[in-house]
Amino acid sequence: MTLIKSWVDSANDPNGPFPVNNLPFGVFSNGGAPRCCTAIGDKVLDLHALEQAGLLPESGFDQPALNTFMEKGPKAWADVRAKLTDLLSEGSDKAEEVTKALHDREKVTMHLPFKVAEYTDFYAGKQHAFNVGTMFRGPENALPPNWLHIPIGYNGRASTVVVSGTDVRRPVGQTKAPDADAPGFGPCKRLDIELEMGAVVGQPSQMGEPISVDRADEMIFGYVLLNDWSARDLQAWEYQPLGPFQAKAFATSIGPWVVTKAALEPFRVSTPEREKPLLPYIQDTGPMLYDIDLSVTMAPDGGEPTTITRTNYREMYYSAAQQLAHHASSGCKMNVGDLLGSGTISGPEKDSFGSLLELTWGGKEPVTLDGGQTRSFIEDGDTLTLHGHAQGEGYRIGFGDCAGKIVPAPKFG
Amino acid sequence: MTLIKSWVDSANDPNGPFPVNNLPFGVFSNGGAPRCCTAIGDKVLDLHALEQAGLLPESGFDQPALNTFMEKGPKAWADVRAKLTDLLSEGSDKAEEVTKALHDREKVTMHLPFKVAEYTDFYAGKQHAFNVGTMFRGPENALPPNWLHIPIGYNGRASTVVVSGTDVRRPVGQTKAPDADAPGFGPCKRLDIELEMGAVVGQPSQMGEPISVDRADEMIFGYVLLNDWSARDLQAWEYQPLGPFQAKAFATSIGPWVVTKAALEPFRVSTPEREKPLLPYIQDTGPMLYDIDLSVTMAPDGGEPTTITRTNYREMYYSAAQQLAHHASSGCKMNVGDLLGSGTISGPEKDSFGSLLELTWGGKEPVTLDGGQTRSFIEDGDTLTLHGHAQGEGYRIGFGDCAGKIVPAPKFG
Repeated sequence: MTLIKSWVDSANDPNGPFPVNNLPFGVFSNGGAPRCCTAIGDKVLDLHALEQAGLLPESGFDQPALNTFMEKGPKAWADVRAKLTDLLSEGSDKAEEVTKALHDREKVTMHLPFKVAEYTDFYAGKQHAFNVGTMFRGPENALPPNWLHIPIGYNGRASTVVVSGTDVRRPVGQTKAPDADAPGFGPCKRLDIELEMGAVVGQPSQMGEPISVDRADEMIFGYVLLNDWSARDLQAWEYQPLGPFQAKAFATSIGPWVVTKAALEPFRVSTPEREKPLLPYIQDTGPMLYDIDLSVTMAPDGGEPTTITRTNYREMYYSAAQQLAHHASSGCKMNVGDLLGSGTISGPEKDSFGSLLELTWGGKEPVTLDGGQTRSFIEDGDTLTLHGHAQGEGYRIGFGDCAGKIVPAPKFG
Repeated sequence: MTLIKSWVDSANDPNGPFPVNNLPFGVFSNGGAPRCCTAIGDKVLDLHALEQAGLLPESGFDQPALNTFMEKGPKAWADVRAKLTDLLSEGSDKAEEVTKALHDREKVTMHLPFKVAEYTDFYAGKQHAFNVGTMFRGPENALPPNWLHIPIGYNGRASTVVVSGTDVRRPVGQTKAPDADAPGFGPCKRLDIELEMGAVVGQPSQMGEPISVDRADEMIFGYVLLNDWSARDLQAWEYQPLGPFQAKAFATSIGPWVVTKAALEPFRVSTPEREKPLLPYIQDTGPMLYDIDLSVTMAPDGGEPTTITRTNYREMYYSAAQQLAHHASSGCKMNVGDLLGSGTISGPEKDSFGSLLELTWGGKEPVTLDGGQTRSFIEDGDTLTLHGHAQGEGYRIGFGDCAGKIVPAPKFG
């Protein structure tokens, strides 16, 4: 696969995120009601306008969320993608009509791309699990005994999933110093990111009906960048015995663009070799991870961003399809709009870890930003931004940035 | 408070669940579209019909869920309750009109009373936490160190919350015997109930804005019976380090009737004495538990039900208002339709424990049913039913049964 050339000039930049090969889906507004769009070069394309002009089938693009379109299923997704490819490729005879539905990307407001039905976060990066386990239990007992058999996950909070650009308030909560008699209550002091990919479920399953890994892969509509903000001090005190709760509940940021499985098809890669055989219901049936370069930048208030880590989605031990098949295995019904966080994506080297907890090794080895400031964890005013793209031959599939700025904690309690 | 007499004769039975004092809310159908109703004696009263007849304010009772009505807030809830009390009390001059909207309760179908936004399950029964902790870690380490400070909770799965009467398929999943080298995959062998009350959130909070305990109490619309079905063998293998997931995801049953806070007002009781002082943000500001008698019956396929436990909601260590205040403390946004499970309600005696895990002490001391059959855990064909009521002077506030029959596991994997 090489670059598909477009009559939209900016879509032909080999380092640009949004060529015709990509065509991610999102929701935008420019004064009026939010509606569905795709990105092409430095423009967004109003899909509802194309629908009204008869250039696309009626697909629910007037809605302020992609859920209606996702419900229509893989055939509809492929059909719309094929039509958009025709409309935007060099030589299209509809360029004049389509131009009317283009808006400068810099001038529009992007919204949460879909209504999040439920949010589940996994723990499927082995290096991350090993790092965190080493810090808490030592390297011999780092991986829990179930880790190589189960894509470990827990239910997160959907109500606080927000789109890139939304400020995030520093959470407050209970923490307890190891030597203190009793816990205290106040602003989080160890605020962190988790660099993840989010898989967006586009088709439902039935209650009581497990699904195969292949079916799970078919049900996934696409992928977003995802930052699972984490309050490490709240987490350490609350998480036994039932898992993270308020430490993760205050916010999860996702990118504005859902990159479709179709756009990512050329970048499929296999999961790493299995250290223990998987049970048949979650065995790999083909390459279901993707080669996606990821990085995170950190910028102090008013300062320039510094890249603090670089890694790749292919580092995961379990694919989203395996996670989804496991999620439904008990008979749990999955719905359109369910969001599955991959788990923190850490590479093998220290500069490829996906959280500050790992990058600063529990806060003991601060990172230095380009201006000379150091950080163990996130300070008020800092902006954290996730970046991601798949690198093709002469083109890129970009995800659009996933950014969030931390604002001071509320006064309370 | 004594019985408010009704012109609906069956509502005056001192042992009946649904006198005028109660007026719980639910959703029913009788051939047509599901719509909102209340219960009075052995009837359901079609609230949409009353709305159409101009006897109640327009409140969204045409909807197949109570969410629209709940969104209208405490003043609207009180107003509708006052009007219904007038319409149904002895001496009402509207009896003839209202009669047209009554249907035999036995002949209608009850539906899930509200759209569950998100479901959170707590762990706020001290006896239950102590029992389970004792089985897993011994009596000295039974309670986790955070337990007396935090209303421990975790996010559950909203997509599989079902109304009483819905069959529940035995889940399948990964389990591992302590002496096995690797896990296996198959039907759950230690299927259990958890006897809980569910608090229904009727008003939202804002992201980034913690709420006080008093505000949390105002936000609660009412309470339902809740059975948090649990696959103990799946749970034991999967729950470290991030908490229960598939062991709880396959089904949660709730009763068909949301009993309002107003109906329960005369039954408010305080939480037990604090063994350690609570942090201010979750301190009790008044009695926020309720004196509600609870029991569970178990019936084998085609057999008679046997009562296997009796307890009371007042056994909880934390109230729902405290749980809700803690839930929002980090800045987590709460929504209309959020459902909070109390945690398993176990009394101090063995015959007052709220799960089979405790009643049979890990399966080692089976319970004997009236017909002579014994049970360590639930078998296919068994029906488990939760019962609950608050006992007033000459009247009861009933919750309606919360029943579920277990059907065989799907063939899979």
